[in-house]
Amino acid sequence: MNTHILIPRWIIPIEPQATVLTEHALVLEGQKIKALLPVSQALQQYPDAERRHLPQHALLPGLINLHAHSAMTLLRGYADDLALMTWLNDHIWPAEGKFVSDEFVFDGTQLAIAEMIAGGTTCANDMYFHHGAVARAALGSEFRMMVGCSILEFPTPYASNADEYTRKAIACMDEYKGESLVGFTLAPHAPYTVSDATFSNIVMLADQLNVGIHCHIHETQDEIATSLKDYGVRPLERLARLGLLSNQLIAAHMVHTTTEEIGLLAKYGVNISHNPASNLKLASGLARIAEQVAGGINVGIGTDGAASNNKLDMFAEMRLAALLAKGQSGNPEALPAWQALEMATLNGARALGWQDRIGSLVAGKEADMIAVDLSQVGTQPCYDPVSHLVYAADRNQVSHVWIAGREVYTQGHHASLDHQEVLTRARRWQARMQG
Amino acid sequence: MNTHILIPRWIIPIEPQATVLTEHALVLEGQKIKALLPVSQALQQYPDAERRHLPQHALLPGLINLHAHSAMTLLRGYADDLALMTWLNDHIWPAEGKFVSDEFVFDGTQLAIAEMIAGGTTCANDMYFHHGAVARAALGSEFRMMVGCSILEFPTPYASNADEYTRKAIACMDEYKGESLVGFTLAPHAPYTVSDATFSNIVMLADQLNVGIHCHIHETQDEIATSLKDYGVRPLERLARLGLLSNQLIAAHMVHTTTEEIGLLAKYGVNISHNPASNLKLASGLARIAEQVAGGINVGIGTDGAASNNKLDMFAEMRLAALLAKGQSGNPEALPAWQALEMATLNGARALGWQDRIGSLVAGKEADMIAVDLSQVGTQPCYDPVSHLVYAADRNQVSHVWIAGREVYTQGHHASLDHQEVLTRARRWQARMQG
Repeated sequence: MNTHILIPRWIIPIEPQATVLTEHALVLEGQKIKALLPVSQALQQYPDAERRHLPQHALLPGLINLHAHSAMTLLRGYADDLALMTWLNDHIWPAEGKFVSDEFVFDGTQLAIAEMIAGGTTCANDMYFHHGAVARAALGSEFRMMVGCSILEFPTPYASNADEYTRKAIACMDEYKGESLVGFTLAPHAPYTVSDATFSNIVMLADQLNVGIHCHIHETQDEIATSLKDYGVRPLERLARLGLLSNQLIAAHMVHTTTEEIGLLAKYGVNISHNPASNLKLASGLARIAEQVAGGINVGIGTDGAASNNKLDMFAEMRLAALLAKGQSGNPEALPAWQALEMATLNGARALGWQDRIGSLVAGKEADMIAVDLSQVGTQPCYDPVSHLVYAADRNQVSHVWIAGREVYTQGHHASLDHQEVLTRARRWQARMQG
Repeated sequence: MNTHILIPRWIIPIEPQATVLTEHALVLEGQKIKALLPVSQALQQYPDAERRHLPQHALLPGLINLHAHSAMTLLRGYADDLALMTWLNDHIWPAEGKFVSDEFVFDGTQLAIAEMIAGGTTCANDMYFHHGAVARAALGSEFRMMVGCSILEFPTPYASNADEYTRKAIACMDEYKGESLVGFTLAPHAPYTVSDATFSNIVMLADQLNVGIHCHIHETQDEIATSLKDYGVRPLERLARLGLLSNQLIAAHMVHTTTEEIGLLAKYGVNISHNPASNLKLASGLARIAEQVAGGINVGIGTDGAASNNKLDMFAEMRLAALLAKGQSGNPEALPAWQALEMATLNGARALGWQDRIGSLVAGKEADMIAVDLSQVGTQPCYDPVSHLVYAADRNQVSHVWIAGREVYTQGHHASLDHQEVLTRARRWQARMQG
């Protein structure tokens, strides 16, 4: 197996917490991290390994985008600055109804992957339709993807009812079983689009298939008001009764939480994907993120789809999470930089149940890593690389990206996908949609 | 005089409002914009002009950073995630007291200018000490700068009391009189650091010298509480009584405003610099920005200093302003993209009293302009360039920057400053400060 010694200026392993290593090397062997050692020791123990100097760079785990609708990159900027239901009913849903297909999803997902890899994201927790196309796009780009199989009651061109969505989900999971880079979740869309019976069925199936559940929960006040009217309880209470709450659940958004609900989520080990840009853009609200984290909930960070963000930039999202936590709570010490970085890496891995595989630079884990060049004017001087990664760095400072030990991106060049072809297809979709 | 015809994919002139021109050219003659014309007409009328095709680019006015402490780039990431008074008293002020000098300010300001130009900012409204060094850094980099001359009661290494700060300000204004790229404001630091007598003197002087006033106002609740205790009124009321409110005043931050205060600011034509990242990071609060704008106040956008942001990225700041306005107001239609772009350009020029010179692409104005390449994966497809500029583009997509008609930045290369030398000096300061 090929062995490489990476010698960056800083290693930020995420575990142990809030640690910055200098004069250390990371030994990469095949797909995995072999060791983190003082440089001299690494050179001594692995004299034949290829050496790679990264003298101005921080090496850290790849960022994990915990809530994405990747294919929606093709709807980036298609409609903005609108009220949520106008945006969905008059723009997004009609466009999706007319254009979404295997080809649309494959092309849109590859565009998202090209953007995410170039910006230091090595894994995404997706939720969309045409799951096979999502999986193929990820595998074809050597990108790590948790494919969320959307399930809802109402028909789309992909399926006509919850049963059909579910059957297609199971078929797809079977087809891609054994693929190391791709996993699956059952993804009931939201409390307002999924019935009690379907939720119960999903809980049973997730248990049988040993997969996670990914669901939009408490995104808006309107969702909560509707639930109170229709079910007499808030959505989280309803889902608790249906047995949905567990550490296998990823609750996307969770903007609105009472103190009791924070306790409930912590008690069951429910994971939250905090999506600050989307929550602001759609005016969904300001999540009590500092309290959620302090309450012991595992909170990761997601971009949501490019139609409501409009960039899949986990650097921007980390920064916004760290800034907004302070503004929302009134406490400038809330969510310090190291914690935002942990949310965007290890907490994401924990939410996916992949904490033993990725999310930190620890011997034995798969090597999902990024190098970030901090020598540019925007990140100089550099007193603290963790502060710069969260508050100052741009995603284009990501110079190298490895996924499962494979270097998929180097100084602006993708090794695992055809960047020009991806752009050409995006433009072709634009022409069709504007046609 | 040299005449050039620029032929971009899109021209976003800002005036008329919310306009996107295609198949148009901008004719640049010397320092000024000569005309905006349909391409064929431009080629016919100026047959000998040099032609410049920008086929994937949006051409728009340079961004105006309406509140900066440029030299503080040297304190970028020096101390983060702390309460405001701890941050100031235990970290920032001691470091400034020990290190700030003409040389520090010149080097820090040039670092800021290098970062700002590369990110599409062509003009900054600064506020700091050692004003001569700020002016020299701007002129040496061919950057447009409004130099704010800080005035406060307490001593720093620069001056010992308000009188001395004021004398030094006036001397500096005299020295740089007639420099087209540089202007000056009197900059009383804040209501809690400046006495009634000094404010009154500043009002008189500003009138005599015909310069603007730049002041931190209503940044925190604590400032307001202190004023109520010490003066029996909120700071804005006190400043109103002292005659400070006018269209020559730029109120930085203005996070906390009652409905009556919004009316008062609008009535007097006071300008606001909204600094969303800094306001979040220091947990100062969430400005009622949508209401301020709707109330008729001229609101521009600023980054604040790199010690509390920590990037001088007007693209990030515009996006945050547009997102936060929606989240804060609960209205997803608040502050649409075109309006955020106007705030970051023309409104900034209006606040500086330079609306007849810069801020929009209009014949006769000085050519402060940027080209932004929207062909990258993160901004494809492109249905609406204005949406992409605000919500999706990264600052590194700025490909060309002109200030007063001079092309100061082209595809990653600075023409008006020595990028390597700027970095070398920044590193030298870091070594000294960590020494």
